Amino acid sequence: MHTEEKLNMTMLCDFYELTMGNGYFQAGLRDRITYFDVFFRDVPDRGGFAVCAGLDQMIDYIQNLHFDEEDIQYLRGKGIFSEGFLAFLRDFRFTGDIWAIPEGTPIFPQEPVITVRAPAIQAQLIETFTLLAFNHQSLIATKANRVVRAAEGRTVLEFGSRRAQGTDGAITGARAAYIGGCRGTACTISDQLYGVPAGGTMAHSWVQMFDSQYEAFKTYCQIYPSNATLLVDTYNVLKSGVPDAIRAFNDVLKPLGITRCGIRLDSGDITYLTREARRMLDEAGWTGCQISASNSLDEYIIRDLIHQGARIDLFGVGERMITARSEPVFGGVYKLAAVEDGEGNIIPKIKVSENVDKITNPHFKKVYRIFDRKTGKAEADYITLYDEEVDETKPLELFDPEATWKRKTYTDFTVKPLLVPIFQGGELVYDRPSLPEIQARCVRQVDTLWDEVKRFENPHNYYVDLSQKLWDIKQGLLRRNG
Amino acid sequence: MHTEEKLNMTMLCDFYELTMGNGYFQAGLRDRITYFDVFFRDVPDRGGFAVCAGLDQMIDYIQNLHFDEEDIQYLRGKGIFSEGFLAFLRDFRFTGDIWAIPEGTPIFPQEPVITVRAPAIQAQLIETFTLLAFNHQSLIATKANRVVRAAEGRTVLEFGSRRAQGTDGAITGARAAYIGGCRGTACTISDQLYGVPAGGTMAHSWVQMFDSQYEAFKTYCQIYPSNATLLVDTYNVLKSGVPDAIRAFNDVLKPLGITRCGIRLDSGDITYLTREARRMLDEAGWTGCQISASNSLDEYIIRDLIHQGARIDLFGVGERMITARSEPVFGGVYKLAAVEDGEGNIIPKIKVSENVDKITNPHFKKVYRIFDRKTGKAEADYITLYDEEVDETKPLELFDPEATWKRKTYTDFTVKPLLVPIFQGGELVYDRPSLPEIQARCVRQVDTLWDEVKRFENPHNYYVDLSQKLWDIKQGLLRRNG
Repeated sequence: MHTEEKLNMTMLCDFYELTMGNGYFQAGLRDRITYFDVFFRDVPDRGGFAVCAGLDQMIDYIQNLHFDEEDIQYLRGKGIFSEGFLAFLRDFRFTGDIWAIPEGTPIFPQEPVITVRAPAIQAQLIETFTLLAFNHQSLIATKANRVVRAAEGRTVLEFGSRRAQGTDGAITGARAAYIGGCRGTACTISDQLYGVPAGGTMAHSWVQMFDSQYEAFKTYCQIYPSNATLLVDTYNVLKSGVPDAIRAFNDVLKPLGITRCGIRLDSGDITYLTREARRMLDEAGWTGCQISASNSLDEYIIRDLIHQGARIDLFGVGERMITARSEPVFGGVYKLAAVEDGEGNIIPKIKVSENVDKITNPHFKKVYRIFDRKTGKAEADYITLYDEEVDETKPLELFDPEATWKRKTYTDFTVKPLLVPIFQGGELVYDRPSLPEIQARCVRQVDTLWDEVKRFENPHNYYVDLSQKLWDIKQGLLRRNG
Repeated sequence: MHTEEKLNMTMLCDFYELTMGNGYFQAGLRDRITYFDVFFRDVPDRGGFAVCAGLDQMIDYIQNLHFDEEDIQYLRGKGIFSEGFLAFLRDFRFTGDIWAIPEGTPIFPQEPVITVRAPAIQAQLIETFTLLAFNHQSLIATKANRVVRAAEGRTVLEFGSRRAQGTDGAITGARAAYIGGCRGTACTISDQLYGVPAGGTMAHSWVQMFDSQYEAFKTYCQIYPSNATLLVDTYNVLKSGVPDAIRAFNDVLKPLGITRCGIRLDSGDITYLTREARRMLDEAGWTGCQISASNSLDEYIIRDLIHQGARIDLFGVGERMITARSEPVFGGVYKLAAVEDGEGNIIPKIKVSENVDKITNPHFKKVYRIFDRKTGKAEADYITLYDEEVDETKPLELFDPEATWKRKTYTDFTVKPLLVPIFQGGELVYDRPSLPEIQARCVRQVDTLWDEVKRFENPHNYYVDLSQKLWDIKQGLLRRNG
């Protein structure tokens, strides 16, 4: 059997989720209600924030969660799972509650991005896929958002399928890049499945297939007069590429009254070549011709190109975005925060560590984002116990959880809870936004961040603080477990 | 529609493959026979060689290649494809020939790893997926092989699913890691689909779920007496983790006569902690207890740990291997090498570039590997025209294609053609090896490389030379196109 024959991703879990599941089952802990948080510790590329994504695929996964007969047989073959547990898996479905921060929202280290409340076996089983979907798409959405911001309003397209890490890396990677602000992708199936607009025109092989470059260009313009972006670097960009393109535009598009067209460069000194190409196109009257560039680009190179005066209307960004090459790992973790005793009381749990920032925040929690009422800017995130409310009419004093003498009082503010209900009792209660809506949310929410948080080098450290009650509980647990 | 509902990967292609396809169709080039080579230019991490992988997924893809009615409708909706072309796609299947170097073989820059001979539209359409499968799995197999070699015979397991770049990054990533030499994975579905042995025992949450660490350990040993690897770093490794593990082993395993067990560390100073843990286990009589470590490992950290005397039997390697973090892109390309005229003559094609090493090797080619007959070691790869044979009984003079005065003559050698037939006339003619056979091939073939090629820093530059005939043709084309 090969991947193409299997769609159900229930078995995409670390094997220890199953050994622990069987263990909980046998130890009488199967109905123990647990709370797990997904959070991350460091923003990739030392950025000031990340963009969360992947929730939609997690929802699909949870809704499809079930063990087929072939899965049960595979597990039985391992010889370590009890028949009782295997029978339990046969009827397995998710019955818990999930809260999450909507896709496209800026997120910060240490705060819960997803909280799962479910019986132990269920909560454990969904760990691997939940982390995979969140880590992968947040990685790419965060990277894409950096690239798009570097392009300062110019169009950015995702061109990386051939260098993606696997089929899903290409497919949902293009989706995540779109959430981060890309306008489209080269990946056709991402358009078909998710509505990420796909486009593209020609490779070098098209040019090589004809007897001359001019003939290749002319033929392309004849077949696609409304969408003629010609790749001009197969031979020599300025000596033949741009001149042949202009000739084809003149011969085919001009008689049709078409002024919109394009050229693309995929090699060489992009700054110099695009400036010269722009001049040649303008002199020939093709001021409506857009110039695309697509050679190993990322946010740093794009910033430099613009700074140096390159004349580029559209960036095609490939391997460095689809793999987040500069930092290809998003380190989201899934940690136990609490359990319930038999009587519905929530017992907070903590994971201690020699490394202070690896200590978890215990208990069932909420996250509020505090906005300045005048500027509309996000000032801080505020993590509280699940039942704490923030009163916008009263001053709110926050303190740094590690340097508690650092305090700041907010008076003229609004608050917004970030975690919204996704599943309740196993039922989807979330109205899933469309992909363009998610992209628009990302633009709006990133706009609420101060420029200091958005810069690439040494961004301002956005505040993520704990309520006094939560801080007290954490300290108490640390004293007991430390 | 979501990914879970679609298995056919035909539409996982860059959109320009389709615009070019429609263009070839309309320009009367649909039956033009073309030759494309897959090759790469640089070994990741400045290594001396790469390990090729991904062929099996490419074979699945080619065999499943077809356009569903929904694909046709999607394409029609784009409004740029001719009805003739869409009708052509309805009956589309691959009818060409493919040669490839078998998975698990060491490969070197500039040599063809896959050669496709097919009508232009077909050859173009399979570009994206072919590159994706080859680039992704070769990336991970190459990285895994480095990690496994650093471990010097100790077991390496793949633990990275939760940080993989998408579902397929985890699933076929674990497959590629196995080809590179890992003994198994944590990814259950990779076992089920590909037979990569999956294993795992417990996370920190298991330990936290019980009233005490000892009780968590004891319960685990009772349920899995033959497979008890206990995670000892939830609280304090040496003060409570290892002592509680020993107590559980004594209380549960000893009465059963079981001496094989394990502990795992996932944080802290691994060298110090494993040395102390080893001492404590040995003193308690648990010399058969294996020690596993799994904290952000890669080939460099593993080499250091061993050098410093860490006592580790098994490495669990996660995010840095499954994403090839140090160099997450494998740069395989797909370039036109020749076309046939109507009469079966092969017309070589070249892609020139200002950058010398971006110039392609034209024509339909073969790759021979030359082994020293006495040592069995691989000495050089030799690229020839498709119809050149090497006579092992006669001296063979090779020359550096860029510095042609550098010459070396081989006398006592054997040669082996590396590219083997995979598809002929669209039919699979390749006897697909099992995954363990591919892994064994990798071990055997890497053994034929000199240590100088295998070292991590400044490896010896393995020779990849061109035959005189091929070199002459290339120079002729360069003079005409340069």
